[in-house]
Amino acid sequence: MHIALLTDFGTRDPYVAAMKGVIVSRCEAHIVDLTHDIAPFDVWEGAFFLRDVVRYWPAGTIFVCVVDPGVGTARRIIAVESDGKIFLAPDNGLLHFVGGNAYAVTNESLFLPNGSTTFHGRDRFAPVAAALANGTKVEELGPRIDDRVLLDYTPGAIIRIDRFGNCVTDLVPPSMPFAVTVGDQRIDDLRKTYTGEGAFLIIGSTGCIEISVANGSAASLLQLRRGDRVTIIPK
Amino acid sequence: MHIALLTDFGTRDPYVAAMKGVIVSRCEAHIVDLTHDIAPFDVWEGAFFLRDVVRYWPAGTIFVCVVDPGVGTARRIIAVESDGKIFLAPDNGLLHFVGGNAYAVTNESLFLPNGSTTFHGRDRFAPVAAALANGTKVEELGPRIDDRVLLDYTPGAIIRIDRFGNCVTDLVPPSMPFAVTVGDQRIDDLRKTYTGEGAFLIIGSTGCIEISVANGSAASLLQLRRGDRVTIIPK
Amino acid sequence: MHIALLTDFGTRDPYVAAMKGVIVSRCEAHIVDLTHDIAPFDVWEGAFFLRDVVRYWPAGTIFVCVVDPGVGTARRIIAVESDGKIFLAPDNGLLHFVGGNAYAVTNESLFLPNGSTTFHGRDRFAPVAAALANGTKVEELGPRIDDRVLLDYTPGAIIRIDRFGNCVTDLVPPSMPFAVTVGDQRIDDLRKTYTGEGAFLIIGSTGCIEISVANGSAASLLQLRRGDRVTIIPK
Repeated sequence: MHIALLTDFGTRDPYVAAMKGVIVSRCEAHIVDLTHDIAPFDVWEGAFFLRDVVRYWPAGTIFVCVVDPGVGTARRIIAVESDGKIFLAPDNGLLHFVGGNAYAVTNESLFLPNGSTTFHGRDRFAPVAAALANGTKVEELGPRIDDRVLLDYTPGAIIRIDRFGNCVTDLVPPSMPFAVTVGDQRIDDLRKTYTGEGAFLIIGSTGCIEISVANGSAASLLQLRRGDRVTIIPK
Repeated sequence: MHIALLTDFGTRDPYVAAMKGVIVSRCEAHIVDLTHDIAPFDVWEGAFFLRDVVRYWPAGTIFVCVVDPGVGTARRIIAVESDGKIFLAPDNGLLHFVGGNAYAVTNESLFLPNGSTTFHGRDRFAPVAAALANGTKVEELGPRIDDRVLLDYTPGAIIRIDRFGNCVTDLVPPSMPFAVTVGDQRIDDLRKTYTGEGAFLIIGSTGCIEISVANGSAASLLQLRRGDRVTIIPK
Repeated sequence: MHIALLTDFGTRDPYVAAMKGVIVSRCEAHIVDLTHDIAPFDVWEGAFFLRDVVRYWPAGTIFVCVVDPGVGTARRIIAVESDGKIFLAPDNGLLHFVGGNAYAVTNESLFLPNGSTTFHGRDRFAPVAAALANGTKVEELGPRIDDRVLLDYTPGAIIRIDRFGNCVTDLVPPSMPFAVTVGDQRIDDLRKTYTGEGAFLIIGSTGCIEISVANGSAASLLQLRRGDRVTIIPK
């Protein structure tokens, strides 16, 4: 069994290491780092990260997802069960793309005693994940809810600038020939691999359209940013 | 059993990967990354990291801590046994906040043969950690010592600027109402969560006072840095 | 058994986490991160990283090495068996320093169905690594080849600027007294440890000459870069 961690904590601070200690102290599950490099407070980035990763993980995996600017406030911690996987996250949209039954995590007996108001990753998420690994059922965490927070999301945008400068959209390519416009720029050329000169379109690993440059950064070349609206036009 | 790694090596260079190989070649322990992002040569940052993490880890854990600007010089390698956990580190203050019996690691039969003078992480720390995982007792590493190096540490300062810009102090809050001064700035407002406008005080996850801004960086807003002296004043 | 990962993907994007999910879904091997911080597209950096790490890992390790600017093109995926270890990589020189029998990975039955042309790390490398962990023989991956791509490499240069600013060369020190020139600079002083003032030479952890500064960056002080040619001169 694996406990997979996604946070915006970075690894220079002691936060992830404290969470790992709590988990290791309480269960035998293997810890796997998904990422700790989500931009600070960036719930959207975390949500799209999960969207593109979750399907590749097996049933039984416990995901601990902490991008939590509202820590300590009235925001809830939720658990979502989806295809035999369990996700723990603050109720702020981080699990927007994860369907399934949701529960409010209110069972305080599972939390560290005398926990802080500022670090629920260590004091609540980690011990609850360990309890799940030890056989606690998701129904024991707290009551079913049907009003969890979702993102105010309208498709048709660049949802990620990746490390290579690829501009990843959420647009599925149509079956007829097409071009793409973003701002006042138009990209016409559809290629199958990262080759040739200039910016081009490519169907990326999510099945959606990406704007790319071979061996370079499309985002830098075209001055594109996450959130820029993208339109498909027939040609 | 876990071997937990803390270094200032980063992960772009091959140093951590070589250490992991030595450990995996010699024992069955699980390797866990605490951090490799301690600032280069920054023994203080490493010491405070350990201070905030160690208590959450279980007995039996072996900590390999390498922030070692004096590698290859007469500085000793030490092992400290504390609550059933064993810490390996250069004798330079990195284990300042870890109490317990200390030993000089002098048993060369445990080191890699023909080791370098520049990379004891790979040639000495890693094989000694593996030996401990395989049952070697800390007393077998070398003689007890009682003169290990400590930091020249006076409490009353910002000890960490974290990734979110929180200014973490080492000051425990008093029971009466208080404000905090740092340089010529005074912060009065004590909040329980990261909400509202402007800079405020909050009791952080270490139980000490932090200076924070909701969804922003207090360090940037107030131009604060690690080491800045902080004073509690009654009000 | 361990599956060791080396990529240029970073960890902010979902790529590494998707690869890990595919591996975990298909085998029991332990995943270990070597690095995901190879500079984007930098096959040379990856090749030298592997050169310095591989010898420390045990037989049975499966290395998944993905620095792959040509993904999806006619470039092959290769497997190399070396001292009981198996390496998967694009055929672009990334395994330049890894000797052994090489195979073209052409057995499509091992790939994810309906894979992308842009992310073979997830769709091909990861499931093939899992298959190897489950007992598939390297001979079953595809035909032996003897024409794999090597780097156009001439020794006598700085091959890495490490995190500390050490300039790591590929030059083995001669037995007689020597100095080193790089551009119009000459470094004479050979030291055994990182001590004293100014730039000096030291025999680094690879057994080769490095140009260093104690508690500082030789690369910054001397304005040196990777690829700068270095010459040994007798004195």
